[in-house]
Amino acid sequence: MSMDLTFLGTGSAYPSPHRGASAVVLRTEGECWLFDCGEGTQTQLMKSQLKAGKQNKSAGKINKIFISHLHGDHLFGLPGLLCTVSLNYSPTQPPNCVDIYGPVGLRHFLRVALELSGSQLVFPYAVHELEPTGDQCPPEGLLSPTVTQSSESLHPQERPGRTICLEGESDCYLLFEEKHFTVKAFRLFHRIPSFGFCVQEYDRPGRLNTHLLKELGLTPGPLYGQLKNGETITLENGQVVKPSEVLEPAIPGRKVCIFGDCSSLLGEGGLKACRGADILVHEATLADGFQERAVEHGHSTPSMAAAVARSCEVRRLVLYHFSQRYKPVSLQKDSEEDDVLELQRQAEDALKGTATEVSLAEDFLTLPIPIKRSN
Amino acid sequence: MSMDLTFLGTGSAYPSPHRGASAVVLRTEGECWLFDCGEGTQTQLMKSQLKAGKQNKSAGKINKIFISHLHGDHLFGLPGLLCTVSLNYSPTQPPNCVDIYGPVGLRHFLRVALELSGSQLVFPYAVHELEPTGDQCPPEGLLSPTVTQSSESLHPQERPGRTICLEGESDCYLLFEEKHFTVKAFRLFHRIPSFGFCVQEYDRPGRLNTHLLKELGLTPGPLYGQLKNGETITLENGQVVKPSEVLEPAIPGRKVCIFGDCSSLLGEGGLKACRGADILVHEATLADGFQERAVEHGHSTPSMAAAVARSCEVRRLVLYHFSQRYKPVSLQKDSEEDDVLELQRQAEDALKGTATEVSLAEDFLTLPIPIKRSN
Repeated sequence: MSMDLTFLGTGSAYPSPHRGASAVVLRTEGECWLFDCGEGTQTQLMKSQLKAGKQNKSAGKINKIFISHLHGDHLFGLPGLLCTVSLNYSPTQPPNCVDIYGPVGLRHFLRVALELSGSQLVFPYAVHELEPTGDQCPPEGLLSPTVTQSSESLHPQERPGRTICLEGESDCYLLFEEKHFTVKAFRLFHRIPSFGFCVQEYDRPGRLNTHLLKELGLTPGPLYGQLKNGETITLENGQVVKPSEVLEPAIPGRKVCIFGDCSSLLGEGGLKACRGADILVHEATLADGFQERAVEHGHSTPSMAAAVARSCEVRRLVLYHFSQRYKPVSLQKDSEEDDVLELQRQAEDALKGTATEVSLAEDFLTLPIPIKRSN
Repeated sequence: MSMDLTFLGTGSAYPSPHRGASAVVLRTEGECWLFDCGEGTQTQLMKSQLKAGKQNKSAGKINKIFISHLHGDHLFGLPGLLCTVSLNYSPTQPPNCVDIYGPVGLRHFLRVALELSGSQLVFPYAVHELEPTGDQCPPEGLLSPTVTQSSESLHPQERPGRTICLEGESDCYLLFEEKHFTVKAFRLFHRIPSFGFCVQEYDRPGRLNTHLLKELGLTPGPLYGQLKNGETITLENGQVVKPSEVLEPAIPGRKVCIFGDCSSLLGEGGLKACRGADILVHEATLADGFQERAVEHGHSTPSMAAAVARSCEVRRLVLYHFSQRYKPVSLQKDSEEDDVLELQRQAEDALKGTATEVSLAEDFLTLPIPIKRSN
């Protein structure tokens, strides 16, 4: 199953002509998940190679949306994106429910924006809210319940969503488990409650050792399928064959972790969830030299991101959410003081001696996430 | 006083890479007024020539915002624009109140968006709401009072705004009168209540006839100013000079009218307000051939816009708010069926025999509005 990540916006604070506001798309065969939706995400999507032929065809495929926190540069594109997806929905496309995950308050925001703008969608949606803990931000960053608990009735296309609480043991939020993936959220510390997301693909059985099977006298057929599905079989000669005897080691599932804005992880949940990730996408708003200022604003530097990657022993750290002062490499002039490549160097320096690679995200960059080899 | 209009977005329904969502800036010396604020307006502003040197410098100057109606393609850029203006506010700039005018419901939308996103602004703002009449749209387009009457308290930077009702006699809404302008709104018929705006500059006294003044023995000095200000003066020889004797005819004020989405005007207010306008900006979402569909969706065609321009005897009709099917002229291919120039031709045909000129708006087009000659 192919899998890739596309960055639609890699700038912090606000969208600019050279960096969109936060938005990342995780694509697998048949699924298109959006992580954060800053203002302008729908236009970035149209400009991207995700647009397949017809405008917004891929936008129409977005079936799950994850909002890390409610700051405008991660949120304000959501009502417009939903409206445009709806306008461009193919009449032959089944109107599947779009599931939206994010902090408490998201449901009210979307309801008010869609209701007051008179927006009707051709598909249903549900908002599943994560209940933050009181220590995810300074006290002034917490919303009062009177603001988040909307008294209005559901929007006509809204389906009741769940409220998801922290699980004590895992220190994580279990968002859902489906055919190929388990998705969890974990707590981050920021100016307002912020979350990271972990997408874990299930391990898959290893390949059948056909050489061995032939030696046992088995030719390709239904018995192959039974063994692959983990069933023990008995041959005509009475010999019992266990799957473990003829299967190569399992293929470990891929793991992709995407962090919202943060100056630190909170609790053990994130570290546990992200351990061994294939890709860890982490913000690096400002260079190491501005660490004090970054932390004061609830943000990270490359070295801080690298420390998380090191603790989790990830394969690749991808930096994003750069201050708009850092131009994309292609637009950078020699005379410019702020060099985004310096951010990469700082993370690489901090990860010296580890196997972790460092990449810089840019708008419209697509990173394939290859299938792993058997252990 | 110089005066010009800049189009930041000329597309309907949603922003696309080739046409932004609705937004028009009216600039005069020292004032910068924004009409509608679709998603992406802040980025369009940064891309435009209105950005003077430093990013968003001109955005920081926007001191009045007018929202014609609450559809997302005219509204969803507003919270983000205010946040970015705030972020880029110069510390030396006095934090003047931003006055925002729009239909009932706008105050609640902005309050919820700013509150839930934890947005603090460095300047105060006030939302002045226009009370629509029940016949501005089909019944299903009216908001229920439970949706628009927010129970929350004011946002920390919010100042109490006025509720503005229709004035029976003029059939208009008087938004404000200030040093150089009177601004009114008038009613339009659309799928939801929509408004047009009329900016009327005051007439200015004509020039002094210096030839005549010299004949009377007056040399340039304070007496010139008194005459210009409309005061009658008495010369040393006892002769009385009235301003009307030495002033050329008054210079009529300029008038700019900007329509929100509509399939028609409602009542006489708009016609009266727009009479003789220098520029009338009117939507033309679809070509004449699609009139039925346009009207069904509450929109206009070029001929419909031309009919309004003809009734009002305007100098120039500017068409905008084009369906995204109409590419800008510069991007249009010969093979394309939908030709935006055809929209201009249709309006021109409908205005044959009149003195009204027709222009097509495009993103980033700036139209100067020259001072008129004396009558």
